[in-house]
Amino acid sequence: MTKTPDLILYTDSSPNGFKITIALEELGLPYTLKHVHIEQGENRQPDFLQLNPHGRIPVLMDTATGITLFESAAILLYLAQKTARLLPEEPQAHWSAITWLMFHTSSMGPLLGQRVHFELFESSTNPATIARYRELTESTFSTLDQRLAEHTWLAGDEYSIADIATFGWMHIARIIHFDFSQHRHLTGWYERVALRPAVQRGISLPHPATGP
Amino acid sequence: MTKTPDLILYTDSSPNGFKITIALEELGLPYTLKHVHIEQGENRQPDFLQLNPHGRIPVLMDTATGITLFESAAILLYLAQKTARLLPEEPQAHWSAITWLMFHTSSMGPLLGQRVHFELFESSTNPATIARYRELTESTFSTLDQRLAEHTWLAGDEYSIADIATFGWMHIARIIHFDFSQHRHLTGWYERVALRPAVQRGISLPHPATGP
Repeated sequence: MTKTPDLILYTDSSPNGFKITIALEELGLPYTLKHVHIEQGENRQPDFLQLNPHGRIPVLMDTATGITLFESAAILLYLAQKTARLLPEEPQAHWSAITWLMFHTSSMGPLLGQRVHFELFESSTNPATIARYRELTESTFSTLDQRLAEHTWLAGDEYSIADIATFGWMHIARIIHFDFSQHRHLTGWYERVALRPAVQRGISLPHPATGP
Repeated sequence: MTKTPDLILYTDSSPNGFKITIALEELGLPYTLKHVHIEQGENRQPDFLQLNPHGRIPVLMDTATGITLFESAAILLYLAQKTARLLPEEPQAHWSAITWLMFHTSSMGPLLGQRVHFELFESSTNPATIARYRELTESTFSTLDQRLAEHTWLAGDEYSIADIATFGWMHIARIIHFDFSQHRHLTGWYERVALRPAVQRGISLPHPATGP
């Protein structure tokens, strides 16, 4: 008899969701995937709001510890601590990983989200608003490019949850043609991450993202 | 002879800066405050870009460990780990603190930042854009209010870096009249945090924020 996995992931095909499917695939942890169909409003159902009162995926439930978390960066930190993997131990690299994870979480992901909204879904947007989010996200691409000119991975020599979080969004940026090809080091890093078998599995769960 | 503090904080009067001055005052850690005058573009000077290539405050340098960090949430996690304070040890409360810290970092702070930009600094903004950011930030206020209806502090029974991060921005929201008084539990929590002597010191460094 196969044991039911301890981990239950509530997710949908989205930049934040892919961060966790990639991490779980990298770690080889068994998990049950629950597909929350956002287009059908399942994230607004009372059962789901019990898990995350803000109504967003991903949510991870660990039945072994009784802990339920939301926010992709919190889940990545939890999985790294649970397994002692994907987060360097050496202090400088450890805190570099966390710094770049937070850079993505705070300064990059949310602004890419706004850019997607205004460029793809809000045709009446003031052109200055579109220009604003292009410029702000372009600035984050430049910052990452500069970092990756000097380091193979965001934390330094080790692939970590900082790369996974950043890739989750860059994968969507690529699909919807937010061009970042002029950033040579960022593009090289993107190709390195994309080649990883666990990443290829992660971005297809629950199903691959589609273009605009 | 007084020892030079190990910690050097580069900051300005801002929501993200106050998070760190509050935390350092709560912890009673000695530190040297370097005022980065953003209005004078000091955050774009080469010396500062060496510390944070993205050109944002706060930055913390710990000369005892040689570690330099940016992104306020990364700095808060670092200070909590360094001191084993402001982050509960008990697993459920520990991960609740991190979840709510990430909720602030990803889902709340960046959207409040966009609301400030469009409401206060961009007079030609499309009214739909202003309405968008009011609605999105109002939704985060509701989520926090619901959490604080059931818990004294965001992590549960213990005041933590999740409260400090959230207060950093709510303090600015209050000053610039983003009204959240209808959220009774959030307002009660705000008043509890504001009464703390360390918070009162933290929000005056390098100088108090001013209204719009």
